[in-house]
Amino acid sequence: MKLVIIGGLSGGMTVASQFRRLDKESEIIVYDKNPYVSFANCGLPYYLSREVAKREDLIARTPNQLNDQGITVHTEHEVISVNDQENYVTVKNLQTGETFNDYYDKLVVSPGGEARTLDTVKDAKQSFIFQHLHHLDQMDAYISENDVKHAVVIGTGFIGLEVTEQLKKRGLNVTVIQHNDKVYSTLEQHFTEHIKQTFDEQDIHLMLNTTPKSLDGTTLTLDNDETIDAELIVQAIGILPRTQFLESSNIVLDNGFIPIDEYGLTNIDNVYAIGDAVETNYQHVPNKKVSVALAWPAHRLAYVIANHLAEKNNHKHDGLLSVSILRFFDITVGSMGLSLEDLEGEDYIIVEQTQNNKAGYMPDATPLSMRIYVDTHTRKILRASGVGKNGLDKRLDILSTLTRLGGTVDDLIDVEVSYAPPFSSPKDIINMLGYKTIGKLK
Amino acid sequence: MKLVIIGGLSGGMTVASQFRRLDKESEIIVYDKNPYVSFANCGLPYYLSREVAKREDLIARTPNQLNDQGITVHTEHEVISVNDQENYVTVKNLQTGETFNDYYDKLVVSPGGEARTLDTVKDAKQSFIFQHLHHLDQMDAYISENDVKHAVVIGTGFIGLEVTEQLKKRGLNVTVIQHNDKVYSTLEQHFTEHIKQTFDEQDIHLMLNTTPKSLDGTTLTLDNDETIDAELIVQAIGILPRTQFLESSNIVLDNGFIPIDEYGLTNIDNVYAIGDAVETNYQHVPNKKVSVALAWPAHRLAYVIANHLAEKNNHKHDGLLSVSILRFFDITVGSMGLSLEDLEGEDYIIVEQTQNNKAGYMPDATPLSMRIYVDTHTRKILRASGVGKNGLDKRLDILSTLTRLGGTVDDLIDVEVSYAPPFSSPKDIINMLGYKTIGKLK
Repeated sequence: MKLVIIGGLSGGMTVASQFRRLDKESEIIVYDKNPYVSFANCGLPYYLSREVAKREDLIARTPNQLNDQGITVHTEHEVISVNDQENYVTVKNLQTGETFNDYYDKLVVSPGGEARTLDTVKDAKQSFIFQHLHHLDQMDAYISENDVKHAVVIGTGFIGLEVTEQLKKRGLNVTVIQHNDKVYSTLEQHFTEHIKQTFDEQDIHLMLNTTPKSLDGTTLTLDNDETIDAELIVQAIGILPRTQFLESSNIVLDNGFIPIDEYGLTNIDNVYAIGDAVETNYQHVPNKKVSVALAWPAHRLAYVIANHLAEKNNHKHDGLLSVSILRFFDITVGSMGLSLEDLEGEDYIIVEQTQNNKAGYMPDATPLSMRIYVDTHTRKILRASGVGKNGLDKRLDILSTLTRLGGTVDDLIDVEVSYAPPFSSPKDIINMLGYKTIGKLK
Repeated sequence: MKLVIIGGLSGGMTVASQFRRLDKESEIIVYDKNPYVSFANCGLPYYLSREVAKREDLIARTPNQLNDQGITVHTEHEVISVNDQENYVTVKNLQTGETFNDYYDKLVVSPGGEARTLDTVKDAKQSFIFQHLHHLDQMDAYISENDVKHAVVIGTGFIGLEVTEQLKKRGLNVTVIQHNDKVYSTLEQHFTEHIKQTFDEQDIHLMLNTTPKSLDGTTLTLDNDETIDAELIVQAIGILPRTQFLESSNIVLDNGFIPIDEYGLTNIDNVYAIGDAVETNYQHVPNKKVSVALAWPAHRLAYVIANHLAEKNNHKHDGLLSVSILRFFDITVGSMGLSLEDLEGEDYIIVEQTQNNKAGYMPDATPLSMRIYVDTHTRKILRASGVGKNGLDKRLDILSTLTRLGGTVDDLIDVEVSYAPPFSSPKDIINMLGYKTIGKLK
């Protein structure tokens, strides 16, 4: 059997190595348009400030290691079309310009996303996107070689915030520009006040409701005619699924995303899809679709696809809760479940609780604020979110586990947290959210 | 209605205040044999080193606050017998010696445990137990007034370890004595190697397989004839349910513990029991009995009892998972589910995993070791345990939530943890335990 994989990061490469463990015989070929594969995407920002001290720590497996595993990788090879009738992909060698066809028995499509850019700035030599290892390398070298002192980050999504934090920690002055008045718009805006406060504390200049109008050298003029010093510009305005090349095929797309079934299969019976470009459903609200561009879902689906390819166990993918979390300096923000937009049409009450993350008499206790959106009919949690300095991650994990297992707010009060004063409270915020909700719902 | 409560700590006092919120009319009387009520038991050790800086931070509610709430508290009043036929308790005023009867409509029994003592040392002026606020006060004053430099802690349960840590942090030399070769015997002994290593690192003298033979002044002679300097002796060798006074009644006891039903009722229909002296069942293995002397279960059961007393909601207590956790200097140990002894007769496999608590390239990633005991028939987790510097608490919380909701190891691989490099891994230890177990079981 010959397996061709398009894309050599979390999704595609994890399928490759998991499948190789289950099947020693089949041929595995990976094409990736970028110069590097198998690196830790999520870790890239942390090298900017050298919080991650060594670049090589970001490499999961080297080309040699992959080769030793029996995985053939072709970097800087872009798959430009798929012929699912005759089972081949057309590949362009980006170094030589030549194209060729490669036949497959099974195909895994893991193309990821394409970072969006801004016409006003994208062609300037100091403009970068931040998505792949070579982007990090380029930006890192540019900062050093040009002794950059002032950076502009456009966008306040998680990449924008992570890069902002890291550039600041590297010693740069940073200005952050956001086109509307919403910082980290996936979170409730009253929670993001903590992020705005952190901008102030860290002396980072946040400019809301504005966009770049023109760039002249290192002078960036905004649409309100203010000018700012922009020796470095990071465009962090989101990603789009990189699936245009699939329009050559019969693979169904939905707004550019690839719908998949419970085994990761597309509508074509020997073509799987994985990673940032796939569309699945919320596990707890199966009639609503969701795309989650994070590493965790890619790793889970890789297991399902690898086992299905190898005809081993039939573990099924049953959707995602879309848990996400972000550290921004000393605060953490995160959420689980339906996005704010996807709450539309649901019938819910909101319950919010603020209390210390551990026994209040402990010297390092800090406040944690959480909110849950509870379906008034099923009493299940549709969404949870929060902010705090410590301990948000574990409460989201509890709510994610409870929700995945079909639990309701009535179960919340009985969630037995591991309690000792350094860790939690006998009435943990999770239990209190349960008490409060039951009081409101009954 | 007149409610009498025996015991004014986590169990009894939480019932009192929760019931008061639900019922403004009834009379609530609390008897406690000790001088203080409504303090944070679990926090007491941390005042020894002034990690908790102010003694008043350990007081949950003062007698005046309780009085304002309409809760009448009699401290240093010991209930010496219960007449459940005629519905009265006999109370001894420990200050005057007089006894009297007090009638109740409903009775809540929350007597807690009695710390065990050692005949060899218990009568010495430098010997203490560590259970109540006045014990802390006495020991704290004794250390200061006598400028104590050398302390001996007998026992390596969680009180022994917490007090050892705190005395060391206060600057004392500490010797710890354990009668057998097991440190913190509720945990797997290979995990407790980390505790032993911490003893070494902290320069605390650990003496195993020995017991005190005689005490002469501050010289403690052990059964191996070694002598050690014992200016302060802490007896931390466990607790027994303080239920002897109930032998006057028809309340059923089981090995000294009070069995309760799903509403916290004893066998007598107007007598409830709560706290360290009750016996319930494991939630996930209902045919096995368990007693958990911790604050978390007391707070949960208090809600059930208060609501049942007030004839409000019928939330039921359905047993405990017996989650426990302990910080000892920079390490954390903990467990969930059946005790090592209670595993007997179960049919299980053991799966263990050691990996970093977060993305390995993050500078503060530290190893975490966890073990799960999985029922080979039901595929449910009977017990989990582990050790690590950080992040054990949240993994135990996940396993506790999953187990309470009836989840199996097949659900483990899909537990959607909140992932970003500062918090976890795309293949979190929880997910890895799932993969490993499925591989072993199938």
